[in-house]
Amino acid sequence: MTSLKFRDIIAARQVVARFLKSTPLIHYPELSEQLGFQAYIKHENHNPTGSFKVRGGLNFMHQLPQAQRKKGVITATRGNHGQSIAYAAAQFGVKATVVVPHGNNPEKNSAMQAFGAELIEHGTDFDEARALCETLEAERGLYYVHPCMEAALFHGVGTYSLEIFESLATVDAIIVPIGGGSGSCSAITVAKAINPDVKVIGVQAENAPAIYRSWKEGKHVETDSCDTVADGLATRVPFPLPLSIIRDGIHDIVLLNETELVDGIRLALRWTHNLAEGAGAAPIAAAHKLTNQLAGKNVVMVMTGANLDTETLKAALAYQL
Amino acid sequence: MTSLKFRDIIAARQVVARFLKSTPLIHYPELSEQLGFQAYIKHENHNPTGSFKVRGGLNFMHQLPQAQRKKGVITATRGNHGQSIAYAAAQFGVKATVVVPHGNNPEKNSAMQAFGAELIEHGTDFDEARALCETLEAERGLYYVHPCMEAALFHGVGTYSLEIFESLATVDAIIVPIGGGSGSCSAITVAKAINPDVKVIGVQAENAPAIYRSWKEGKHVETDSCDTVADGLATRVPFPLPLSIIRDGIHDIVLLNETELVDGIRLALRWTHNLAEGAGAAPIAAAHKLTNQLAGKNVVMVMTGANLDTETLKAALAYQL
Repeated sequence: MTSLKFRDIIAARQVVARFLKSTPLIHYPELSEQLGFQAYIKHENHNPTGSFKVRGGLNFMHQLPQAQRKKGVITATRGNHGQSIAYAAAQFGVKATVVVPHGNNPEKNSAMQAFGAELIEHGTDFDEARALCETLEAERGLYYVHPCMEAALFHGVGTYSLEIFESLATVDAIIVPIGGGSGSCSAITVAKAINPDVKVIGVQAENAPAIYRSWKEGKHVETDSCDTVADGLATRVPFPLPLSIIRDGIHDIVLLNETELVDGIRLALRWTHNLAEGAGAAPIAAAHKLTNQLAGKNVVMVMTGANLDTETLKAALAYQL
Repeated sequence: MTSLKFRDIIAARQVVARFLKSTPLIHYPELSEQLGFQAYIKHENHNPTGSFKVRGGLNFMHQLPQAQRKKGVITATRGNHGQSIAYAAAQFGVKATVVVPHGNNPEKNSAMQAFGAELIEHGTDFDEARALCETLEAERGLYYVHPCMEAALFHGVGTYSLEIFESLATVDAIIVPIGGGSGSCSAITVAKAINPDVKVIGVQAENAPAIYRSWKEGKHVETDSCDTVADGLATRVPFPLPLSIIRDGIHDIVLLNETELVDGIRLALRWTHNLAEGAGAAPIAAAHKLTNQLAGKNVVMVMTGANLDTETLKAALAYQL
C-alpha cells in the first residue's frame, strides 16, 4: 500500500452497502449544550460486529481473487479486526483463521469463533501472534491480512466518513480515535476530497502514544508498552503509510489518560445511552478538552466500537458519574 | 380509534422514512447458540430518541392539521412517549407541552426539554398528570395526544414490524414487550397481513400484569400498582383497543419478575453490547423461557428502548453476571 485513493473509497461504498446499512449520525441536544458545540455521534458501534472495522473486512474480501478465496485467509488480532475478518469471510464463503495471543479476552475470542473463524492462540503478545501468521501464510497458502498495511481495509473503513458528509451538510470537525490509523487516515482522505476545511482531530491514549509522539517529534517513535483500558488504541508501532497521511493531514491529536478514557465510557452511557468501548468513547472524552476551539461548530464524534467486556464496564461504573 | 389498519401502517412507512433510517435487524450467533434458535434483535434502541415511540410521534405530527400545528399539542408521559412527541413536534415546528408527575426521572425530563418541549410537573402519578392535560387542552386550545388512544401513533410504530419483514425473509416469531400496547398491536396487525403464521409473543412484568391478566382472565383487569424496574412496562390500566387486538392476535404472553428483568439488562450488555432499558431487554430475558417452543426457529426480539438511567444500570451490574 503506497497511498489511499478517494476514488477507491467511493468504489467501496457500493460493496459495503450490499451488506450493511449506513450507520446513524445522531444529534444529541443535551451533549451539545454541555460542550458548547453541536454534538453529532457517528454510530459505528451499531454495525453487526459492534465496530467500524467490518467495513474494511467486507471491502477486502470483495477484492480478494477467487483462487485465494478458496485457500483462505489468516490474520492476527486482539478483537475488532478479527471479528471483521471472520464476519466478512463468512459472507463470502472464505475460511478465516485468526491468531490471538494467549490470555486474549475470552469474550472477543468466542465472538470471532461464533462468526465461523478458526481460532489459534499463540505467543504472549500481538507481535508474537503476528509472527505465526507469516509462518502459516507460507505453510498453508493462506493470505495474510495485515491489519495496518492492506489498502482495501482502509478504503472500506473510509465509507463511514463518506456517510458523515452524506448525512450532514455542514461538517466543521471530525474527532476520531487513532489505533492502527485506518479510521483517521481515511477520514483525512475523504475530508480532503470533499471539504478540505474540515478539521480531522485524532485521539490517543497517554499510555499508548506512538503515533502522537511520531507526529509531534517528526520521527518514527515506537513505545515499549501500550497498556490502556482502550484496547482499540493499544498500538506500540506506527506503520509508515498511516503515519505519513496523519502527519500530512491531521489537525490535532488529543492525548487522554486512563481516568479520562474511563470517563468517556460513562459519558457515552449517560448522554447517548450507548455502550461504547474505550476507544469508541474516547472522542466524547476528548471533546471536553476542545470546547474552546470548537465553540458553535458542527462536530462529529466517531463512536468506533461497542465491544466492552462486562468486567471493564463494571469497573468504569464504579467511579462516581 | 376503533381499529388498526395495515394500509395506514404502509402509508406511515414513507412519513417515518423522511426522518429516520430503518433500524438494523442484527443476527447474534453467540446468543443463537445459547438459546437454540436463530436470535435476531430489532434495534429500536438505535433511534434518535433512544426508543421506538418516535415513529409514532412523527406519524402523528404529519397527520395533525395545520391549524392545530400552530396551536400546539400536550401530552402526559414518564419518558419515551414524551421524548417522541417532543422530537417530532420540533421536526414539524409544533410547540409541545409535556406533563410529568412530580418525582419523575430527571434524566428523562431534561431529555424532553432538550428536544424543545415545555415541561410541567403536576400530580403524584401518571393519572394525575394526565388529568391536567385534559384541563389544559380546553383552556389553551392544545391537542391532547393520548399515548394509548391515538391511531396515528400505533400506525407509526407499526413501521418497525414492516421493516422486520423487509429485512428477514423467514420470520417465525416476534417477541415484543407490552406496555401501552402499541408495539404488540401493530406487530399483530402487520404479521396478520404479511404472514399469519408468525407468532407474536408479548412480555409483561409480574409487578405490572394488567394486560396479561385481562388476556388470561377474559375480562378487563386494572391493577393497584405497577412498580417495576422496567418503566416501559409500567401500566396499570389496559385500554380497550389494544386489549381487543392483543386478545385476538397474541400467541402468548410471558411474565417476568424483577430479577429476570434485571437479568435481561445484563444479558443485553453481554451478548449484544447494547444498553437496553428494562422493557427493551425484556424480550431477551423472556426468550430464555421459550427455548423449547422456539427451537430452531427464526426469532426477532424487539429491543424497544435504550433509556436506562445510570443508577439503575449500576444496580443491574452489581448482580453477578
